[in-house]
Amino acid sequence: MYTVLDTSMRDGAQHNKISFSVEDKLGIAKALDLLDIDFIEYGAPGFDSEAELFEARSNIAPEKLVAFGMTARVNTPPEKDEGILKLISSKGSYVSLVGKSDRRHVEKVLRTNAEDYLKNIRDSVAIITKCGKKVIFDAEHFFDGYLFDPIYAMASLRSASEGGALILALCDTNGGSLPHSVRTAVTECRKAFRQTIGIHAHNDSGLATANTLAALEAGAEHVQGTLLGFGERTGNAALSTVLPLMKRLGLKEMPGLKLLTPVSRTVAEISNISIPDSAPYIGSAAFTHKAGLHADAVLKERDSFEFIPPESVGNIRRLVLSKQAGRHLVKSKLQGVLPEANEPEILSAIFAALKSREAEGYTYEAAEASFYIMAARLAGRKVDFFETVDYTVIDTSDALSHAKAEISVGGVTASAKAEGNGPVHALDTAMRECMLKFFPAIDSIGLVDYKVRVIDPKSATGAKVRVSITTTDGKRTWKTIGVSRNVVHASFMALEDSYRFALNDDFNGLFA
Amino acid sequence: MYTVLDTSMRDGAQHNKISFSVEDKLGIAKALDLLDIDFIEYGAPGFDSEAELFEARSNIAPEKLVAFGMTARVNTPPEKDEGILKLISSKGSYVSLVGKSDRRHVEKVLRTNAEDYLKNIRDSVAIITKCGKKVIFDAEHFFDGYLFDPIYAMASLRSASEGGALILALCDTNGGSLPHSVRTAVTECRKAFRQTIGIHAHNDSGLATANTLAALEAGAEHVQGTLLGFGERTGNAALSTVLPLMKRLGLKEMPGLKLLTPVSRTVAEISNISIPDSAPYIGSAAFTHKAGLHADAVLKERDSFEFIPPESVGNIRRLVLSKQAGRHLVKSKLQGVLPEANEPEILSAIFAALKSREAEGYTYEAAEASFYIMAARLAGRKVDFFETVDYTVIDTSDALSHAKAEISVGGVTASAKAEGNGPVHALDTAMRECMLKFFPAIDSIGLVDYKVRVIDPKSATGAKVRVSITTTDGKRTWKTIGVSRNVVHASFMALEDSYRFALNDDFNGLFA
Repeated sequence: MYTVLDTSMRDGAQHNKISFSVEDKLGIAKALDLLDIDFIEYGAPGFDSEAELFEARSNIAPEKLVAFGMTARVNTPPEKDEGILKLISSKGSYVSLVGKSDRRHVEKVLRTNAEDYLKNIRDSVAIITKCGKKVIFDAEHFFDGYLFDPIYAMASLRSASEGGALILALCDTNGGSLPHSVRTAVTECRKAFRQTIGIHAHNDSGLATANTLAALEAGAEHVQGTLLGFGERTGNAALSTVLPLMKRLGLKEMPGLKLLTPVSRTVAEISNISIPDSAPYIGSAAFTHKAGLHADAVLKERDSFEFIPPESVGNIRRLVLSKQAGRHLVKSKLQGVLPEANEPEILSAIFAALKSREAEGYTYEAAEASFYIMAARLAGRKVDFFETVDYTVIDTSDALSHAKAEISVGGVTASAKAEGNGPVHALDTAMRECMLKFFPAIDSIGLVDYKVRVIDPKSATGAKVRVSITTTDGKRTWKTIGVSRNVVHASFMALEDSYRFALNDDFNGLFA
Repeated sequence: MYTVLDTSMRDGAQHNKISFSVEDKLGIAKALDLLDIDFIEYGAPGFDSEAELFEARSNIAPEKLVAFGMTARVNTPPEKDEGILKLISSKGSYVSLVGKSDRRHVEKVLRTNAEDYLKNIRDSVAIITKCGKKVIFDAEHFFDGYLFDPIYAMASLRSASEGGALILALCDTNGGSLPHSVRTAVTECRKAFRQTIGIHAHNDSGLATANTLAALEAGAEHVQGTLLGFGERTGNAALSTVLPLMKRLGLKEMPGLKLLTPVSRTVAEISNISIPDSAPYIGSAAFTHKAGLHADAVLKERDSFEFIPPESVGNIRRLVLSKQAGRHLVKSKLQGVLPEANEPEILSAIFAALKSREAEGYTYEAAEASFYIMAARLAGRKVDFFETVDYTVIDTSDALSHAKAEISVGGVTASAKAEGNGPVHALDTAMRECMLKFFPAIDSIGLVDYKVRVIDPKSATGAKVRVSITTTDGKRTWKTIGVSRNVVHASFMALEDSYRFALNDDFNGLFA
């Protein structure tokens, strides 16, 4: 049986621009749970404070949860090692325990006796196993260690095996191994051990996928990586690339593969990183064909420039300069909500607006409520239940913000002033005050998420920003978007759309 | 002899966000000429107008220049085909001629007779060769074609060979091939032909590097790719990854490898794309160490988390400051800049401040200039060369911002007003106006990057935001940070730090 472990929240958090709150971790786990991922490694209890908060609040099944830790500190008996004790009391069924397999690092970095360290590995694994956990042994620097001193590297695995480890995950910690070395070492390990052999590859040579593939071909049955490939330095093997490959090789059932692209985008959004357009399978350009020869060929013969259908990984084909691309996707989105969209003219207008808004920097995939509002407006429905006559926000050097808003409903005007700890907070409070005078039901809704992304950072403070906000009324949760060169104005646009959505009965069934 | 061809300007230009002017092409060619690249494919004369302008103005040696074109149009004798005639009159010694190797595409996309097309290949190559050019035959869809109908695929190569082609470049046009298929096909081609076998890989499966490596292992001696890996869809094999690999395998002399990172950045700049931080070898994070443990190990034992020295590819090591960073990392960062940090008390104070600021949401790993300012202040150095007495920013519903700032230097006060397309833009302009009255040298500095991150998005508009900005004076580039619940105030803090850094002579040697 082949298994896959995602370590976005642990090894992925080594990426120099990532730091996860416990909320982030809960969101990522929930997203990963939709894919064909068997284990979610969420952090190191005792070393990273979010790991324990995560344990307390997560709903992920215990048999999927993996806590991470190290072999006992030098000169500390495992049963007294704080980290080991934390692992033993962790919430899930599994523990990833990292130990060194390269004699040089044992001697020069740990500065301990190599033989003593083998005992440490065995004893550390044994006590965790004895306490009822299943252990995945992460053999750090395994491949480099195997080249330098194969006997010691194999001995480290043997110690873990004797301690009771179920999976021996071979790590290419520096990312410098070549596929043929990986193949040789995995083959040897398969012969020597009855345990499952795993592969944990890094991308420093641009070969993380290749090394993972080489290990699978040589008999490895467990793969570690991070969904989007982020991690320290050049990152880990990207599961978004490895999962489709495993499916293709027939190694694993993949009912979740159709969600690969949307789940990847959710994880990217939470991690506040961008998926490169050119990312295999999930990138926005992965199935984009520039007008001309190739687009023409794709229309004639689907597989002429695509080796898999984009929808098999939840992505879509884009033919640049072609208004056909994605049209039926738009239509299917509106099915049931806006029957007018079955009329070709209305559908065309919505589709054209979508294209032109996207060119301006909007991304509706993370702001569907704004998309429905735009579509409903183009279909002739009423969407503007109020009009913002005016707003002003003043920020001063004491870091306080004061806002004034004036809103009109059917010719009646209301205005309000509010103070806030930021311009958007102040503006939202003032708008809300006005709204409540007309729509008391607004009282039950509140913002739960607020994100800002600079679309073209190189234009510095003159760049466009995209603000997305998430609102809930306790039953439904919806996302809206605003784009402007002015962060306050972009926020205002997203706020307006959020109120529009809340007030519109046409949307009652959505996002419940 | 192993040769490498860069097709950034031809296949790379298929990337959906790239379009090159002739100036761009001249700049890219000049940059590539510094690396160990044998051939520069610059475009398709007759089809892309820049290609001919490029020929007219380029100084690249003719034996490096490769013009690109297709086999003669169906039912056109090659000697009368416009494209072929353009190739014949092109400036360089080499021509890349693309032809189809997959019978299905010949029949369904070209809609011609498969046997006739073999003659077309032969005749097209032959006339170009007869006119004195050396021909590289690009066998489109070769690997897919080889799986479907190996006899036809090999026949297409044989036609090119009979026409006089010197290199037979096998293309994985859809990027769906696996390394073992590439290995098998290349091995067969090596047996069947005396010509040099080449590999042209795409990255749709995340295996462009792996397939290039597999081909080299099977006897290919010519590699095609784009320096940064950009190209249609997920792009081509990245030469910035392949070149170090070829050096490592001992296949090619690489005197230019030390320039890999700066040349890559030049090409990225001209192409107006960003190199991902995590790009192997050339990314800004390729040699970045974050975890306390890892950074600690790298300081003890250089190769513990690096398989090659960063300077061998023109990159540098970065040890980032984070809560995971150890005390001695902080110390080593300050070495040479702030000798006072050798005193244990001062070092402790700096380390404690780093910890407590990080708990508040600061991340100095992406804002080292702010770290140096904080450390210098704690070491008793002067860092406040000005004081911001007051600022006010007003945002109105027309999406415009108006700011007023008042700055005092040694008791003398200056104030200025400015308008901007966002609050930060307006505030920066007003602050700058004030500053210029005291420090005319400020005129040479400018913001080049601006980022906003909501630290705890779940607190919605009441959440803290982290703003980081990048500033340059043309010689040095530095990053500063601000954290506040108020996005305008956080931006103000980052702006203040940026000006502090610019004005401080203690930091002259940093980030140059």
